[in-house]
Amino acid sequence: MSTTHHPPDNLRRLDALRALLAEHGLDAALLHTLPSRRYYCGFTGDSGFLLVTATDAALYTDGRYTTQAADEVPPAVAVIRADVFAAGARRLAEMKIPRLGYEEDTLPIARFRELEDALASTALVAARELIMAPRLIKDAGEQELIREAVDIAEAAYAEVLPLVKPGVGERDIAVELEYHMRRLGAEDRAFDIIVASGSRGALPHGIAGARPLSPGDAVTIDFGARRHGYHSDQTCTVFLGEPSAEQERVYRAVYAAQQAGIAAARPGMAAAALDAVVRDHLAAAGLTAEFSHGTGHGVGLEIHEPPSISGRGDTILAAGMVFTIEPGCYFPHRWGVRLEDMVILEAGGGRRLTTLDKRLETAVLPD
Amino acid sequence: MSTTHHPPDNLRRLDALRALLAEHGLDAALLHTLPSRRYYCGFTGDSGFLLVTATDAALYTDGRYTTQAADEVPPAVAVIRADVFAAGARRLAEMKIPRLGYEEDTLPIARFRELEDALASTALVAARELIMAPRLIKDAGEQELIREAVDIAEAAYAEVLPLVKPGVGERDIAVELEYHMRRLGAEDRAFDIIVASGSRGALPHGIAGARPLSPGDAVTIDFGARRHGYHSDQTCTVFLGEPSAEQERVYRAVYAAQQAGIAAARPGMAAAALDAVVRDHLAAAGLTAEFSHGTGHGVGLEIHEPPSISGRGDTILAAGMVFTIEPGCYFPHRWGVRLEDMVILEAGGGRRLTTLDKRLETAVLPD
Repeated sequence: MSTTHHPPDNLRRLDALRALLAEHGLDAALLHTLPSRRYYCGFTGDSGFLLVTATDAALYTDGRYTTQAADEVPPAVAVIRADVFAAGARRLAEMKIPRLGYEEDTLPIARFRELEDALASTALVAARELIMAPRLIKDAGEQELIREAVDIAEAAYAEVLPLVKPGVGERDIAVELEYHMRRLGAEDRAFDIIVASGSRGALPHGIAGARPLSPGDAVTIDFGARRHGYHSDQTCTVFLGEPSAEQERVYRAVYAAQQAGIAAARPGMAAAALDAVVRDHLAAAGLTAEFSHGTGHGVGLEIHEPPSISGRGDTILAAGMVFTIEPGCYFPHRWGVRLEDMVILEAGGGRRLTTLDKRLETAVLPD
Repeated sequence: MSTTHHPPDNLRRLDALRALLAEHGLDAALLHTLPSRRYYCGFTGDSGFLLVTATDAALYTDGRYTTQAADEVPPAVAVIRADVFAAGARRLAEMKIPRLGYEEDTLPIARFRELEDALASTALVAARELIMAPRLIKDAGEQELIREAVDIAEAAYAEVLPLVKPGVGERDIAVELEYHMRRLGAEDRAFDIIVASGSRGALPHGIAGARPLSPGDAVTIDFGARRHGYHSDQTCTVFLGEPSAEQERVYRAVYAAQQAGIAAARPGMAAAALDAVVRDHLAAAGLTAEFSHGTGHGVGLEIHEPPSISGRGDTILAAGMVFTIEPGCYFPHRWGVRLEDMVILEAGGGRRLTTLDKRLETAVLPD
């Protein structure tokens, strides 16, 4: 995908990273993940690493990607052919970098050892959080791409909703949804689309299967699109026919908990506190064990990225962060419900980026 | 995706792994990658790890996946809820495992350190090759799934080929191809489909872009489907109108090199020797620098897996291995050609699994 329409301002981002490196006493950073490479230099290929020093940036990649890389990265970023990681690492040895940051959350131990072997005089420093930090605050261009991803996914959902009826298979709905997203300009689905109906709704991550929808089903549809690297993520649960009293009660509790979460989000708040708002709402309705996952996650160049909105979420929320709020309740082998919106945090609070109406009244489809 | 139709014989595979562990003096293995988990216990979720000891197997996964896991794994595999990797690792401490193998090629250094911290009395041993070894030889069930993936991709290609004509955008072809693969039963495209036309054909991994096809283009289409976890992979290059003399010469050279590779493959041969057969053929035609990547790669639960058919490929080829043979020539900013088939190695030599005719005579489409 070309970056032509949305110049990602790589140079400004590289400077932001350099300031953080200096602040933390690092001389350089080695970025080996696709989203990091893409964010800081625009390269969309899936091999190689970007080395950022105080004065330079260079992308090391293999022979399959050197032409593409030269087209994608700004002139200030050198492209260096290195067909294996170790070869690139050996070239760094000549630079005698005192302290080099790396992404410890994803760098495989075997690659780490190649770095250690090649760079005897370099201290390797875990720097994932620092490298990630600029990405947590979405700039105007990123917000626009996320909006485009949301628009594409919602337009596709509207086209496919008439298929959500008894007799249609879960995966047929998923296939049509992703086809419409692709035709509308998505690079890809944001993740394997979940269409979980009836008892399969009790699987929080049950991707669409062969099961045909049946009258009376609750159907959880969790879907999103990817646009120029940026993801959208949203979940609706609909009923084929009138929900039972239990379903209605649980759905309303999940909806209320979700709305409470969106309303409570504020800059300066700890992510775990936001998780607690949602969790306490469900607990007050007697739904504790049924909510078996975190409240949400950041969304951007990765479908799951910081901040984690969970009991373990120690991020202090800040304006410009984009994350999901997605409580759910699951009744193993019976049914489930999850409602998810994407929110951008602004000075005054959270603003929904996804727009589908999730009130119960809109969630009842014909059986 | 259910494994109901293709019971993967997890118990036999676990026993094969146990025999290898014993042979290498290991007491257990920790498998953290999705393909490894899927191969050895059938779990298709994307979180958790499988611990295999001489007598037991247990899948540690988080609350989103415990119900799904219990449905997917055989009764002999325990499912243990562990919401973070470190929690699972701590539970292993009680087992006092003397020597534990792990997948060093992909285990992130941060996870490795959690293991080290939790397992003070355990020696951690890099064991990727050992854990991977059974997967290199495809059993009958795996071969059948690969054939299904090939069939789906080829049927979709046949449906979409009429679109390969001037004026149609590269990505429109890719979108239709993946839609047809999905409708025909693919879980997913096997990878981002490449439709690289005209000068974009010089990008070995240039995924489909906005460019509309033009008369005179060479168009490289690299595509595949995924079926119950197993991938197919194939590349055709077609011409919109008569190729130039240079294009014809290069295409024929690539085709001849590819055929020579398929004909030369034998059990007992080193992968690098097979790469050399293909490379030497192109070199004899004066095409050395233009062939800027390896000859091929294994295909199975991963789209790229061992054996690597390249100058660095030290695997000794054996019957039951499935890999690609895919020479290409790239002329930066001008055009490119690549031809790829999947081959299964049998006692008597290589047998093509992909069936599309790639002779030049079949590669010329109307302009």
